[in-house]
Amino acid sequence: MEIDNGLALRIGLSLLAAVIAYILLVKSKNKSGERASNEPAVTVTARPGKDPAEEEFSDEPDEPVEDSDDEDPGAALEQLPRIKLDHEPVDGEEMCRRSQHFYDVMKKRRTVRTFSKRPVPREVVENIVRVGGTAPSGAHTEPWTYVVVSDPEIKAQIRDIVEREEEVNYDRRMGTTWVKDVTLLGTDHSKPYLDEAPYLIVAFEQTSGVRPDGKKKHHYYSRLSASISAGMLLAAVHYAGLVTVTSTPLNCYAALRDLLERPATEKAFLLLPIGYPSEDTTVPDLVRKPLEDIMVMT
Amino acid sequence: MEIDNGLALRIGLSLLAAVIAYILLVKSKNKSGERASNEPAVTVTARPGKDPAEEEFSDEPDEPVEDSDDEDPGAALEQLPRIKLDHEPVDGEEMCRRSQHFYDVMKKRRTVRTFSKRPVPREVVENIVRVGGTAPSGAHTEPWTYVVVSDPEIKAQIRDIVEREEEVNYDRRMGTTWVKDVTLLGTDHSKPYLDEAPYLIVAFEQTSGVRPDGKKKHHYYSRLSASISAGMLLAAVHYAGLVTVTSTPLNCYAALRDLLERPATEKAFLLLPIGYPSEDTTVPDLVRKPLEDIMVMT
Repeated sequence: MEIDNGLALRIGLSLLAAVIAYILLVKSKNKSGERASNEPAVTVTARPGKDPAEEEFSDEPDEPVEDSDDEDPGAALEQLPRIKLDHEPVDGEEMCRRSQHFYDVMKKRRTVRTFSKRPVPREVVENIVRVGGTAPSGAHTEPWTYVVVSDPEIKAQIRDIVEREEEVNYDRRMGTTWVKDVTLLGTDHSKPYLDEAPYLIVAFEQTSGVRPDGKKKHHYYSRLSASISAGMLLAAVHYAGLVTVTSTPLNCYAALRDLLERPATEKAFLLLPIGYPSEDTTVPDLVRKPLEDIMVMT
Repeated sequence: MEIDNGLALRIGLSLLAAVIAYILLVKSKNKSGERASNEPAVTVTARPGKDPAEEEFSDEPDEPVEDSDDEDPGAALEQLPRIKLDHEPVDGEEMCRRSQHFYDVMKKRRTVRTFSKRPVPREVVENIVRVGGTAPSGAHTEPWTYVVVSDPEIKAQIRDIVEREEEVNYDRRMGTTWVKDVTLLGTDHSKPYLDEAPYLIVAFEQTSGVRPDGKKKHHYYSRLSASISAGMLLAAVHYAGLVTVTSTPLNCYAALRDLLERPATEKAFLLLPIGYPSEDTTVPDLVRKPLEDIMVMT
């Protein structure tokens, strides 16, 4: 009888163990959006209040969405009065010409790390940021902030933050790739361009906003929206005749956010020095994939 | 004695429960890269073999990186011969003019969901994809594939996949936002533009590649690289005089990958119908944030 009791208890507690384990497992999965990282998107569950048909991006949400007090991001757009699209159709020939011209301009873009101190009109940088602001975004949330730094002291502080972290990265790396890369890794610690480029643009993703009623407004797909905006901004940098290096200083984001006094709802994801290239600028003689390697026609 | 045994068993099994739960919790967290979703990037640890100074993107890796057999993505670039940058500096005035022109063109971009069946030269679509291929990428991995669909049958299958999922999303949503959004949500199920637009471009991120030695090559920051590429491609679509809707059909990615026969290492993240707008196209009368709301000068 005692033994049966013990057995019953053991079975009961074993089940309890399994249940607790299962609950914690599922909870953490939901919280983490793990689904996103390796599984096909088919495992994504529809998020109440969101209309995927809207101007909406489908990278992963930064946090679980509260169904209950979540508004339909599409609703606000649908409720706006509609106007005729401002668009003048061009014929196929002109379209070929335009598309060829834009490609001819863009294909000369290269990443540059050596900058001239030659000044750049502020108006140009403003137009470049304006172009970033024309990007589509999830439910028109426009979840981006571009901090443009021209103050020499702040540029020096940014360089200090980045170079200090590079040292740490470097030290950590030495253990594992010493033999293969020691000579190469030594070469790139110093980031003089962070002082020399007339402007540094730090791109921030706004992970959430504030509703008119003061409540937190979830930004759907803010990272994808902000990244697409950055892509358009990079096109504008090159179109204007300027150069940059699309850098993402590892481990520096919190420090940059603090230095630039951005709120906790914003995450830095790119650091873009902007300016003229130095006269002696060289770049690696690399080739891009041919069209047939990046495009599949069907 | 029996009772003490029972007590010991209960304590033992309770501990076991906690241990199992803890292990599963931690395991799923590590697998999921949850760190990425809410914490500041400062919690990212430097990844051996990676030189953050290289043309490198810092969104989150899709999976833990194997330090041991991981190569320095910067090394390959550093080892290339260097050439003089092909760049003709323009003066400030010309730069202002160019940046203004590009902004004047880009600011007229709008998301459009009503397409004309008017044909678009294939050459234009090729130039648009070529522009996407000029984007910078982590260690020049160029981790993108653009599948261009013009075959009416495949377009119909894509429409079917998307509309079926929309129905599911719709049904799931009804329970939670019924009162607020029922009238709005009913309006957007049908996606005729997926048949009508002459081309559908499905953008895929390549989460990994293959090295010359046949080993798996990790693509650093492939999602950010591919998103920036898509931003440049969207600029090219508009520059050519075409329109699109930057759509991300929720839950359809695996089905699209299967239909388009892309490998498991590729993840669809955007579905872009490309074409002329229909003559009667209207758009919501929305305004974009003014410059002072997206740019901070310091």
